[in-house]
Amino acid sequence: MPTFQTVRGMRDLLPEEAETLNFVVSKARETAQLYGYREVITPLVEPYELLSAKSGEEIRQRMFIFKDLGDRTVALRPEFTASIARLATTALKTEPKPLRVFSVGSVYRYDEPQRGRYREFWQSNFELMGSNKPEADAEAILLTNSLMKATGLDDYAFKIGHIGVIRGILNQENVDDKVQNVVLQLMDKKEYGKALELVEHEKCQTALQGLLELQVETPFETAEKIKKYVTGYDKAEAAADNLMDILQLVTASGCPVKIVEPAFARGLEYYTGIIFEVNVPDLDIALGGGGRYDRLIEVFGGESTPAVGVAHGLDRVALAMQMQQTALSTRREKTVVVIPVKQELKAEALKISQMLREAGISMEFEVMGRKMAKALEDADRRKVDYAVIVGERELRENAVIVRDLAKREQTTVEISKLPEKIRV
Amino acid sequence: MPTFQTVRGMRDLLPEEAETLNFVVSKARETAQLYGYREVITPLVEPYELLSAKSGEEIRQRMFIFKDLGDRTVALRPEFTASIARLATTALKTEPKPLRVFSVGSVYRYDEPQRGRYREFWQSNFELMGSNKPEADAEAILLTNSLMKATGLDDYAFKIGHIGVIRGILNQENVDDKVQNVVLQLMDKKEYGKALELVEHEKCQTALQGLLELQVETPFETAEKIKKYVTGYDKAEAAADNLMDILQLVTASGCPVKIVEPAFARGLEYYTGIIFEVNVPDLDIALGGGGRYDRLIEVFGGESTPAVGVAHGLDRVALAMQMQQTALSTRREKTVVVIPVKQELKAEALKISQMLREAGISMEFEVMGRKMAKALEDADRRKVDYAVIVGERELRENAVIVRDLAKREQTTVEISKLPEKIRV
Repeated sequence: MPTFQTVRGMRDLLPEEAETLNFVVSKARETAQLYGYREVITPLVEPYELLSAKSGEEIRQRMFIFKDLGDRTVALRPEFTASIARLATTALKTEPKPLRVFSVGSVYRYDEPQRGRYREFWQSNFELMGSNKPEADAEAILLTNSLMKATGLDDYAFKIGHIGVIRGILNQENVDDKVQNVVLQLMDKKEYGKALELVEHEKCQTALQGLLELQVETPFETAEKIKKYVTGYDKAEAAADNLMDILQLVTASGCPVKIVEPAFARGLEYYTGIIFEVNVPDLDIALGGGGRYDRLIEVFGGESTPAVGVAHGLDRVALAMQMQQTALSTRREKTVVVIPVKQELKAEALKISQMLREAGISMEFEVMGRKMAKALEDADRRKVDYAVIVGERELRENAVIVRDLAKREQTTVEISKLPEKIRV
Repeated sequence: MPTFQTVRGMRDLLPEEAETLNFVVSKARETAQLYGYREVITPLVEPYELLSAKSGEEIRQRMFIFKDLGDRTVALRPEFTASIARLATTALKTEPKPLRVFSVGSVYRYDEPQRGRYREFWQSNFELMGSNKPEADAEAILLTNSLMKATGLDDYAFKIGHIGVIRGILNQENVDDKVQNVVLQLMDKKEYGKALELVEHEKCQTALQGLLELQVETPFETAEKIKKYVTGYDKAEAAADNLMDILQLVTASGCPVKIVEPAFARGLEYYTGIIFEVNVPDLDIALGGGGRYDRLIEVFGGESTPAVGVAHGLDRVALAMQMQQTALSTRREKTVVVIPVKQELKAEALKISQMLREAGISMEFEVMGRKMAKALEDADRRKVDYAVIVGERELRENAVIVRDLAKREQTTVEISKLPEKIRV
């Protein structure tokens, strides 16, 4: 018989890892609640046509694509945004704006596996549709800050850039949209030389190169520098103003912005305004990132709708928590086993177990049919707090024996008083 | 531009539907906690070889199978059991028995869509490994009962059968294992005529037919009848005893067993002992089902390990809740909007918002940049409870205006006292 392994790039999360990921998911859900985002659940399998409509070429090449039995070309979602955009143009089309939508679940990309990067990973995704104001952009960053804080991480920081500054220059110099997309992709991969080569017009090349070479200072100083540098490029100037506005809003609320990066670009083609990432030391991959994409909804056949969104890599957050030794703030409950003294008392012992569970007490029933001494020994080894021993004599008086395994003490307790005895 | 639709058989869950499904998921997780099951998270994409190792032919034909970019034949999981069996023979191999494992998530089967049946659906899955005792079987049924109760359903009932009774007869008459599997599959589809035809030996055919034709009475009477009927078939007799034991344990704990069905079979080939389903009126499809499969772990290369498991169809539970008009017991929180009186106060207003959220109060920030009257009108229409109005004059005294939108009253409140004011 073969030993079966997981598919390359996929992995099992064992109980402790699963608990941490679930904790992060619950914090993402709480954040959604605190910021007024309503959760939707979209399919994991989507039409290829939908998923490829606005993803960058790079993501398209890394999708899990296949045909279903009805010969439809489908793919596993590599992110949530396309599915949410579909909803915004269909079922949620008539909802009042602003529309805040939250999703959480696994997504799939055929990447080379490395530390913190798997082919199956978990994201929480927040989309705010209908506002073009800087406070909307600020919200995407602030809620990310709230989520990071809620998980207990304390050493993380934001990096901010603005696609509008770069596109403002390229647009004014009449660089074709498709070329712009490739330039931004190359910049995302830090292949600046290749990016500059693509911009044929010399004046434009010089302008872009100058932007990329701006010395980075404190975030506000850098933002000021960018503003000054793009004077004359009207749209780029407006973008620089927008960047400054957002920077002011988020820092006023205590959000740790470490760097404003003039050459910052992100792989997805659909960004039009601010972009940001949140990072921790010693991890190459961002814990989350997002930005503004004002043309997204149009691409999916909807009305022109300004939108800003952010996605968080929840298993990466869990990894960062482990690296920063963040303790889970989950309360450890008392553990209890219920053991019948003999086989004939199983039904009675099960009834008592049900009563305890209905009182909200977690417990394990002795299902191995072991003798009392053996069952207690096992409970002891597993550091169980209490054994509830169901015996004939005590049952006649509606009572059971409760054994405190750490103290090695036992007392007879009336069944009706069992929940309070164990909770204390 | 095309309007994109979901892939046939898949669907979006809008906020209310998503809330109900999440509620059911949380109840499944609570049930796992109460019964001592630890959660693991396994990949959604698994090797085809693993998933097909012990699934019935029927499920194999309905899997989403494809090749990944590394030319591996993989499939979307149609259930959790194979993944858990893999874990039990690898990472969890050395864990002490009994081993209780819980999983929850979406699974995929290419079925013809109908009411309550989609190609993407949600399951919670409980596996108890290491015990061959009837109290282990009882636990699978009792935890299902606890989950049904926890969701607020009150009109549901269990159907119980025992594969050991049927296989006991077929084994003693030397019917080949593969033929047995097909017989059970046909019985699952209620094609009893075809099933009987397959059993060539006349004596065996008569014995099986007699079993199928037993008149069903109360559960205990039927169980007694089965016991009497199979006299002489030793293993079938032992199975009938086992069925009676389990029936006694679960009914003693108040579990509503409606029917014991002699001809009950379930589509998965791996069952060896008791099988059960839980059903609600007016819904053709079971809300959950499971049973004993003592040879499962062996098939995956592990040591012979008795095991019992159950899976619950969580979106079907949600549908049943809707049909039985079960109200979600989620507390509706106060809703709050924060509105700056003018643009220059946005940063201050955002800071106050963050303070409220850190106090655990859910709120929406006015991101549309609307004038006060417009923003209040919108809040009113959406039945928001409070508007927190951030104005210059009040800010000078570290205060804001709180407007109760239902009562149309407003008061000035010190910022530090805002959380308690809103919570009341």
